[in-house]
This record gives sequence, C-alpha cells and structure tokens, in this order.
Amino acid sequence: MIRAGVIGAVGYAGRELIRLLGIHPEAELVAAIELESGKSLGEVMPALAKTTSVKLETFDAERLAEQCDVVFMALHGGTSMDLIPPLRQAGVKVIDMGPDFRLKNTADFKKYYGMEHRAPELLDEAVYGLAPYYRERLATTSLVAVPGCYVMSVLFPVRPLVDGISRDFPVIVDAISGLSGAGRALHEAFHFPEMNENVRAYKLGMHQHTPEIEQELGGDVMVQFSPHVGPYTRGILSTITFRPKAGLDVAKCYERYAGEPFLRVLGEGKLAEVRFVRGSNFCDFGWVMDKRTGNLIVVSAIDNLFGGTAGMAVQCMNIMFGLDETKGLNFGGMAP
Amino acid sequence: MIRAGVIGAVGYAGRELIRLLGIHPEAELVAAIELESGKSLGEVMPALAKTTSVKLETFDAERLAEQCDVVFMALHGGTSMDLIPPLRQAGVKVIDMGPDFRLKNTADFKKYYGMEHRAPELLDEAVYGLAPYYRERLATTSLVAVPGCYVMSVLFPVRPLVDGISRDFPVIVDAISGLSGAGRALHEAFHFPEMNENVRAYKLGMHQHTPEIEQELGGDVMVQFSPHVGPYTRGILSTITFRPKAGLDVAKCYERYAGEPFLRVLGEGKLAEVRFVRGSNFCDFGWVMDKRTGNLIVVSAIDNLFGGTAGMAVQCMNIMFGLDETKGLNFGGMAP
Amino acid sequence: MIRAGVIGAVGYAGRELIRLLGIHPEAELVAAIELESGKSLGEVMPALAKTTSVKLETFDAERLAEQCDVVFMALHGGTSMDLIPPLRQAGVKVIDMGPDFRLKNTADFKKYYGMEHRAPELLDEAVYGLAPYYRERLATTSLVAVPGCYVMSVLFPVRPLVDGISRDFPVIVDAISGLSGAGRALHEAFHFPEMNENVRAYKLGMHQHTPEIEQELGGDVMVQFSPHVGPYTRGILSTITFRPKAGLDVAKCYERYAGEPFLRVLGEGKLAEVRFVRGSNFCDFGWVMDKRTGNLIVVSAIDNLFGGTAGMAVQCMNIMFGLDETKGLNFGGMAP
Amino acid sequence: MIRAGVIGAVGYAGRELIRLLGIHPEAELVAAIELESGKSLGEVMPALAKTTSVKLETFDAERLAEQCDVVFMALHGGTSMDLIPPLRQAGVKVIDMGPDFRLKNTADFKKYYGMEHRAPELLDEAVYGLAPYYRERLATTSLVAVPGCYVMSVLFPVRPLVDGISRDFPVIVDAISGLSGAGRALHEAFHFPEMNENVRAYKLGMHQHTPEIEQELGGDVMVQFSPHVGPYTRGILSTITFRPKAGLDVAKCYERYAGEPFLRVLGEGKLAEVRFVRGSNFCDFGWVMDKRTGNLIVVSAIDNLFGGTAGMAVQCMNIMFGLDETKGLNFGGMAP
Repeated sequence: MIRAGVIGAVGYAGRELIRLLGIHPEAELVAAIELESGKSLGEVMPALAKTTSVKLETFDAERLAEQCDVVFMALHGGTSMDLIPPLRQAGVKVIDMGPDFRLKNTADFKKYYGMEHRAPELLDEAVYGLAPYYRERLATTSLVAVPGCYVMSVLFPVRPLVDGISRDFPVIVDAISGLSGAGRALHEAFHFPEMNENVRAYKLGMHQHTPEIEQELGGDVMVQFSPHVGPYTRGILSTITFRPKAGLDVAKCYERYAGEPFLRVLGEGKLAEVRFVRGSNFCDFGWVMDKRTGNLIVVSAIDNLFGGTAGMAVQCMNIMFGLDETKGLNFGGMAP
Repeated sequence: MIRAGVIGAVGYAGRELIRLLGIHPEAELVAAIELESGKSLGEVMPALAKTTSVKLETFDAERLAEQCDVVFMALHGGTSMDLIPPLRQAGVKVIDMGPDFRLKNTADFKKYYGMEHRAPELLDEAVYGLAPYYRERLATTSLVAVPGCYVMSVLFPVRPLVDGISRDFPVIVDAISGLSGAGRALHEAFHFPEMNENVRAYKLGMHQHTPEIEQELGGDVMVQFSPHVGPYTRGILSTITFRPKAGLDVAKCYERYAGEPFLRVLGEGKLAEVRFVRGSNFCDFGWVMDKRTGNLIVVSAIDNLFGGTAGMAVQCMNIMFGLDETKGLNFGGMAP
Repeated sequence: MIRAGVIGAVGYAGRELIRLLGIHPEAELVAAIELESGKSLGEVMPALAKTTSVKLETFDAERLAEQCDVVFMALHGGTSMDLIPPLRQAGVKVIDMGPDFRLKNTADFKKYYGMEHRAPELLDEAVYGLAPYYRERLATTSLVAVPGCYVMSVLFPVRPLVDGISRDFPVIVDAISGLSGAGRALHEAFHFPEMNENVRAYKLGMHQHTPEIEQELGGDVMVQFSPHVGPYTRGILSTITFRPKAGLDVAKCYERYAGEPFLRVLGEGKLAEVRFVRGSNFCDFGWVMDKRTGNLIVVSAIDNLFGGTAGMAVQCMNIMFGLDETKGLNFGGMAP
Repeated sequence: MIRAGVIGAVGYAGRELIRLLGIHPEAELVAAIELESGKSLGEVMPALAKTTSVKLETFDAERLAEQCDVVFMALHGGTSMDLIPPLRQAGVKVIDMGPDFRLKNTADFKKYYGMEHRAPELLDEAVYGLAPYYRERLATTSLVAVPGCYVMSVLFPVRPLVDGISRDFPVIVDAISGLSGAGRALHEAFHFPEMNENVRAYKLGMHQHTPEIEQELGGDVMVQFSPHVGPYTRGILSTITFRPKAGLDVAKCYERYAGEPFLRVLGEGKLAEVRFVRGSNFCDFGWVMDKRTGNLIVVSAIDNLFGGTAGMAVQCMNIMFGLDETKGLNFGGMAP
C-alpha cells in the first residue's frame, strides 16, 4: 500500500483527493495537514466520517517523510513553494495540485500570481502532470505539478491540433466552471441567493491559467481566456474557437488519444456536456467546423475537482509508483 | 385602456406577456388564443389564476380585430406568417414576438428556418422592434417584429461600436441562456435530472439568430455565434470578443445610450451578471480591453423572457400607442 | 402619491420592497436608510440602478417624518423597537416588516428572541398586518407589524379550520424555504457549493415563528414547527398535518376567502407548488384528507419575499391610505 | 470475480449500479438488458463510455444464468415479478431493486401498485435487503428485495426506537427527494423550467412506500407519509415526528449501530444534511427532543440512488457472496 499524506486537507481539492484515496485499492491516507489540527477528519468534514480515522496535524516535514511515501499539496498559489523544499529534502515524493510549479517562466509567475517565486531551483525538477504527455518523466520524478483545471480542459483538445492553428488571431477560450472551483472561502458573490440563477464572467484577460495554456501549447499561440462561473457545483465546459490552417484533419490528429483511458473523443458534430463527466476522471470533447466562417469550434468538458484536479493527481501517483494508471479511477460519469 | 390579445398564450413568452399586461396601468388582456380553447387562463396556468378572467379561444381574425387594439404573437417560427396577413387585413395592429418578420432576406429565412417565407409582401411593412434604434418608425407602424433574445444581448453593446470593429476576424459571441429559452416542449435533454448541474452548447455555427445579428450590424460583420444552455431558468449572458480598430473610444460610443431607460452601461472593467437583470426590462453591459492580445471583450446580460422578449414587446406597444415608453416596465431587477 | 421611506434598504426584504414601490402607481420611494449612507441605491444594488435616484442616508426620525408619509422597517429582530418610538413621536406612520411588534406576550419575545422588549408600550397600538383578518383595524392604525413569512403560509390555510382541529396532538408544520429567507449575511452553510444540491432542517422546536403561529391560532393549539431550507432562492412550501374533529367541512370553512384577492384555495386533492406563487403576492393552498389515518394534510405555498413580506407590507399600506388593496400588487406568478 | 448482469440498464437505478460495479474490485458487469438492445452501453449512456464494453441485449433467462453469477433487476413495479421466476428456475441469484418482492402482504401490493401479484410463491424466499437487519438470511438466500429509498431513510432511524413510540398518533414522515427519484420518464412537472426553483408534495396518504415502512416497523405503527420533490438531483431528507413513550433513551437505542459501516448516528441536536451523504452509501441521522411539545423529531439523509438503491444492492451482493460487506462501497460523501 502506498502511504499518502495531504497538506490542505479541508479545502475542496483536498476533500476530493481524500475521497478518491478512500476507494483506491493500493493507496491509503495516513496523514492530513490543516489549520484545524487535533480534530479528526470526520469531525471537520462530516461527509468523510466513518471512512477514515486520520486526525488533522500541523506541518512537520520530517514526520511526514517518515509517515508517507507521497505527499499531496492542495494549497493556494504561493504556499506550497515554501513547504515543498523541506519535504523534498526529507526525501518524500510530492504531488502539488496547486500552481506554484506549473509555470517554467518565473516572470509569468510574478505577473499572474503577484509575487516572486521563492523556490525557482525546483522548477527544472518539477514534471508537469499532464499524464498523456509526460508519462515517461512522471514515472521517474519525485515532484509533480498537476495542471490547472481549466488548463486541462483546453490542452487535451487543442494540443494535438497546435500545428494546424492559424497564428493570425488568438485562440478564444470561453469557459464556464461550477462554483466548487472558487473554493470554500466565503464571498458575497458566492452566497447562495446571489449566485443561484446567476452567471458571471471574471478575470477577463488576466486569469492565471492563461500563461499555463500558452506554455503548454508551445509558446507561440496567443490565448484569449474568458472564464465564467455558473449556478452549479462541479464541471467545466470550455468552448474554444480558432481559425485552422487549410487542410487540418482534426479526427486524424486525435488518433493519438485512442489508447488514453480518460480522454473521450466524441467526434465531429458531437458536443461534450458537463453531465457526462461529473464525478469521473474523463475529459470529453467534440467539434464543429463552421464552413461559413472558416472557424473551428471545439467543446470540452471535465469535472474540475475530479478529472481536473484530484483524479489527475492520483493518475500521476499511479504512474510514479508503477501501478496501472487507471487504478482507483475507473468511474463512469455520475449521471444523474 | 389598450385592449390586447395574445396568440400562443400558454407558451413561455405568452405567459410572460400576460404577466406584464396584468400590471400595466394602461393596457389589459382581453383575448387569448391557444390550442386548449374553452378553458380559463388560470386553469391552464395556475400561476395566473385570479389575475385574469380571460378564457382561451380559437383563432378568428375578424373577432380578434373587433376585440383588440393590438394582438401579440407568441409562436414558433413559421406559424405567425400565416396568421398575421388576415389580422392585418382585418385592421388590427400586430406585435410579433416570433421570428417570422425579423429577417429582411428571405434566402436567410429559408436557410435558417428550413422553409419558404409565405408572406414576404409584409416584410417591408414590418418594423424591427429594437426600440432604441427604430423609435420613429415604431410610432407609426402597425406591424412589429420583436428581435430575438440573444440578438438583443449582442446588438445593444455591439451596434454602437460597429464602425470600430476590425473585419479581419469574426465577432465571437459565446452566450449562455437559462432553460426557459428552450420553451415548454418536453425533451430528454431538458428533463430536470439531465439538465440540472449541466452545461451544454448547441447549434454551433447554425443558430438562427446569427443572420439576424449580422443584418442589424450592417451586413459586413461576420458573427461566430455559439449558444449554450445552463442549469437555471432565466437570463442570457453574452461574452463578445473581437478586435477593435485602433483608436476606438468605447465609452464615447456608448454616450448615445445615456437617455435610454432600459440600457445600463456599466463601464470599463465592470461585468454584467444575470442576477441584476432578472425579472426586468434592462440590458446591462460592460467591457474589458485586453492590451496584451489587442482584443475587446464585452459582457452583456438580459432576461430572455422579460427584457429579451415580452418586455421589449410592451415597450414597442407603448411607443405605437403614444404612451410613455417605460409604462408598466419600470421594474428593478429581481435580486435575489 | 404616498411618499415612502425604508429603513434597512439593502437587506433582501428592503430590496424587494423598493422593487415593488418602483412599480406602484400611487406610491414612490423618497428615502432609504442603511449603513452605507451617501451612496445611491443603484451603486449598492446594481439591480435597482436607473429605477430610482434615492441616496442612502443615516437614520434621523425628524427628517424622515418630514420626507415621508410612511416608513417601512426591514430590520432584524431587536432593532426596530428602538427606532419606531421616535418615528411614531415624530408623527409618521410605520410598517414594520421585522418581528419586534408581532408577539403580544413579552415573555415569548424574550424566550424566542433572547432579549427584553424595550418598547412594550407600543404593543397595544401595533396592529398585526394579516390583511384578511385585520382589515378594519389596519385602516385606522399608524403602526403595523407584518407577520412572519412562514407564519402566513400556515395561518392562511389553518386559521379558518381552527375550531375543527383536535387538541390531542400538535399541529405538525414541516416547511421548506428558499435561501433568500436566510438573508444576506455570509455563512458557511449558505456558501453556494455547500447549499447547492442540499436540504437541511434547522431550529427544530425553537424557531421564533412558533409562538407567533400559536398566538394567531387562538393560543390553545400547539404547533410543532420544523423549518428547512432547500437549494433555491424564493418560496415557502408548508406541509401541515393534524387531526380534524369529526365532521369538519374544509371547503366550507374556506368559503370566507372567496373575495380575498391574494388567497387561492385550490381545493381537495390539489396541492400548492412554489412555482405558481413565485414573484407574486399570492398564497395558494389545497388539502388531502387521509381516511386511513384520520389526518388532514394541507399544503400551502407563498413567495417568502413578496407575498410573505414586502407584498403584504404594501397591501397594508394600501389599506392604511385608503387605496384599492391590490394596487401595485396584481402580479401573476412568475412561472417560469 | 463475481459476474453480474443488470436488467433495466438504462434507468437511473441501473446506471448507478453499473457505475458502482465499474469500480468494485471483485465484481464486474458482464451483461446488460434493456429495450435498446444491440447498442453498447457507452453509446446509450455517454457517461459510461470507455468504462465498459458490454452491449445491451434482450432478456433471455437461460443465457443470463450462464453468463452471470448474479442478476440485478432495476425495473418499475410490476415488471420484475414476471422475469424473476424464469431466472430463479435457471439457477441464477437475483437482487431486485424494484418493489415487487418487498411487501409480504399481497393485498397491500394490490392496493398500492394497482395489480395482482403474479409470483406470490416467491415471497417467502425473498429476503428483505436491509443489511443491518437481515444479514444472516442474506448470506444464504438467492433472492433479495432491496428496500425502497424513502423506506430506508425512515427505517434506519426509527426501527431501533419502535418499542418507545406512542401508538396514539401516527408517525409523521415528511420527506423530500431529489428529482432523480422520479426516474427518466419525461413529464411536464419535471421539465427543467417547471421544476427548477420549485418544491411540490405528491401522493399524500397514498405513496407505495407507506405499507413497506409499516411492515418493517412491526405492523402496528401507523405512518403518515408525505413525500415531496425539490429542485436538486440526488438525496432524500426525511423529517420524522412522533410522540415517544416516557423514558425512551434514544442514544441507547442507537448503540446497536456502533458497528454498522454505513450508518452514522450524529447524536442529539445534530441534524443530517443531504450534502454529507451524496454519492455515498451512508445514511446519517440525528434528533431533537422538544420538551415543550413532548415530541421527538428525527432527521435522516440518504442518497436515493446510491445508499438508497444501488449501494444497498451491492452491499447485499457482498454479503451473499461472502465478501467484506464494504467492498467497493467505501466512499466518503461527495461534498461538494
């Protein structure tokens, strides 16, 4: 059994990870770090009662390295970069679900996260946890940076097409996320009576997932990313519009995904929906070629907490520890 | 008192119109046409019980012309074009909330609605019911074609900027609507357990509101329109992305709306939300200029049934009958 | 025109009242009191922008009495009892939508609101604002205590039956409210991702509306009140179970409501639903007699903010000022 | 590996069962029966694509008995009683998630399901699949009748207290369910715009789960069952009110559940919520003793599709096949 710890156990990403570890046949949660130390997980999160007897503790790198084979980080930007260096020094493998080690360019990090990077020496070591693209490096690394949720919903459908995208105009990404993506911090805008029956856009032109998408598309595709939130809990739908170069054969580009266990290529004229990926590790996508305008529109769906965060983190763990990649993840979508 | 009739009383647009007439100080519902003739409105639509004693009747152009000063049509595409000619002949004014008389180009009508237009002789007479732009003609016409709901959410913010839009790339419109926009016909995709917690795109590149937007933007701006539905009942949020020509002064272009009673220009960096327009005749919009990409992103919100359909229809009626344009419509948004 | 002020303008009850005054043909908002003084209503509540130019002010009883014919109080329990005495002294009529003057028994007030009543001398003057039962007294009073929202959903169907209710067992009231009833204060339990797709009970056996219901049922019927909240914004559904005495003729008891403009008696076997009263001043109810068990089950629905608060407050105002009682309130339910 | 088949694969209970089998470490789906035979499960239910290669077939008892060790029935009342006799004759074990074999009294079956029972000879053999109460018989039976979802939400908290319940008045059960409980058949009342933001009661005094609850409470407790549906997808909240006999020690009665893996006794003053059991096999409950009225109010929560149907079916399978009872079911609640 892989012994796993989680730092940031009570946040929404942490909760989902703990839920997934609870049913993983070859991994178990042995340590959980959070501000509310001393309490049991079930006390703080009644949904998890009777599934684990782990108690919340305070952070101690040495102790975690003894207790755990791997530690997952489920923290806001700017916090894991202080905790990962001591963890790595103590010799434990780390899977970071936060953003600190995703961007290779520290200037971008400063611009989008508003602070200097304080552990740039680890950026080379950190492997970007997009399993279908970094499998080999994931198998041998000890530090993984799991991609952002919006980012995965864009990279899976767009990266195979990148050579066929015209650079004359940005790739337009209009994405909508359920509110779990906004986390557990209270905010008037997310008070139930304010957000129910509402839709809103936010951070237009300045969302921190923009440079991450651009980095992983090769650096020369400009992305216009417009995120929204809608009145539901889980799931991202991304509608991606761009101009293809002449002769782009979309279906052929996606043939590389035939063996991917968690990517479902729906085909031309078939559009992804949130309902089919909820509660699963899948990313679904399909597309429409608009001959009138010459644009290609791709629609993708992912569960932001599962496939978009904790599920991909577990998939990376499976690869790092030589397990079957799908272990503990083979859920169909929860519909309804 | 203006005596009003409605054809298609039980559909969602018809219901909203009846609700608005119920509180209009100078208009009253006197006739309602629907398949379920013989029943009272309150029997068929319990929400309206005790607010009206009108009974559903079958269509009879002569009788309607005697009973009514104005008849509202709340029908699917392809049905009002057969009923309006006899009504106009009988001499009654008509406000059509359906699509039959919006497109001036009958080839576009055939392409997007899948049928020949059967009353093209009325297309010249029909005034496009976009009050801020056609006020003078509305004051004297007897036939109004109320614009589509998505269309208004795009035209209000984009039309003042049209001279400043680069023609090198389409205007990208990603819009999301509440489910009331899909009407009352049962469909598996709109069964509550299927649509709750879901988001989906539909009719990409072929939605019938596309040519209507293009027509009213002057005919030489190409629109890439991608509509979605989300898990809520009322309201459209449209996110509109395009490349402005150098020197476009957005705020200045919107000065023309200062006196408009139902358009609220939020300003730069302020984004519209569905919650502020729900249950009202307002269309809100604001924008972000992304200097990095050179694109302008405008976000607008409208209540698809109120401001986007029945409210605009009543506003047109007010103009046609010489009333204060805001009569019966001066609602603030229902938030929460 | 009746000149109206509102104290507590930004809370959800205050907002709804302002929205209703905005379309009332014979009343207008002239003053609004709230902590955020100095700002315009539209700045603080974007939904109301362009519908009023009133600015928020601080409380000043003398000035309010000069500006206004009537002042509405939209405050939490324990705050209006300090502000109403100076307002009454300054001579202005007051309609209190909060709870301070509903309970005639100050011991009950202390027990359920946790504080001594500080203006008991006004309790005799205060008329309970349940229009169908206190019309005559409302016509001449200067101080009204609008009933609680849950309370109205119970009193309308149960009060006419009170002589026919067995005293052997309590009247069981299981009610569910939309989240707008919880107000605008942030709370983890009402954070969107926590409350969406959730239902919860609260304050079982100790909700402050319990003594109010019992008072208005005559004081000798015991009520077991179990309130819940569900994942929606507006509307209360109350399911009321009790044992009728032999021979109770329910339909006959309800004949007294035939002329009531806002009570809709649906009849036996017909059950009220939230969707038909949303956005209206109606209270709907129907019932089932279960012969097997000998129990009667009544189901009622009301919009907690409209019919259950602000709408009833306006109805009281109409009566106090000699207007037609339905003025400004004749909305059908907003469905969908 | 246990080879499992499912009849009624496309209904909501069938889908959930297939999802659960997909991650069960010692069971696998090998056959699926539904009207749409010939298609793959992933074609008909995109949420399940890439998780199974099983194709839908028509019913054939002999073939199923060869392919499967156990067959789950996920059908409406009145259909499984015709299919189970041939399956049992062919020698395969059967777990029926529908209602046909729950009621021991065929007169009750006729009264509540509107038809004669056509396989009464199997009623003795059928073991009621309430695991905590029928474990020993489940271990050796070949036919299980999984309880109704509402029923479990009532029996778990009430059965241990049954000796302490006064018979003077019925046990009042007011329960609310998410819409997945209504199944996939289209109905105007469950069209998204009609049911969103709505709550409604139904089948008051005549719901078919009433006799099932009464049967399992021993036959001499009368139950007044009032079911509701609310605007969400999954989960039942049951609020249960009754008069306890003097001296009832609730906490002590629940001590018998200390070792139950899926029952969480929250304690006095702690109330269950749907959010903590969603996506899990748990039933949570807590209670309030109202000293003023002398009533006890218990609130329980269960996921109608998981803990309330498919999860309990899998738990029964685990017991029948000698596996650890929690195998494949140890999920924490999905919150958010």
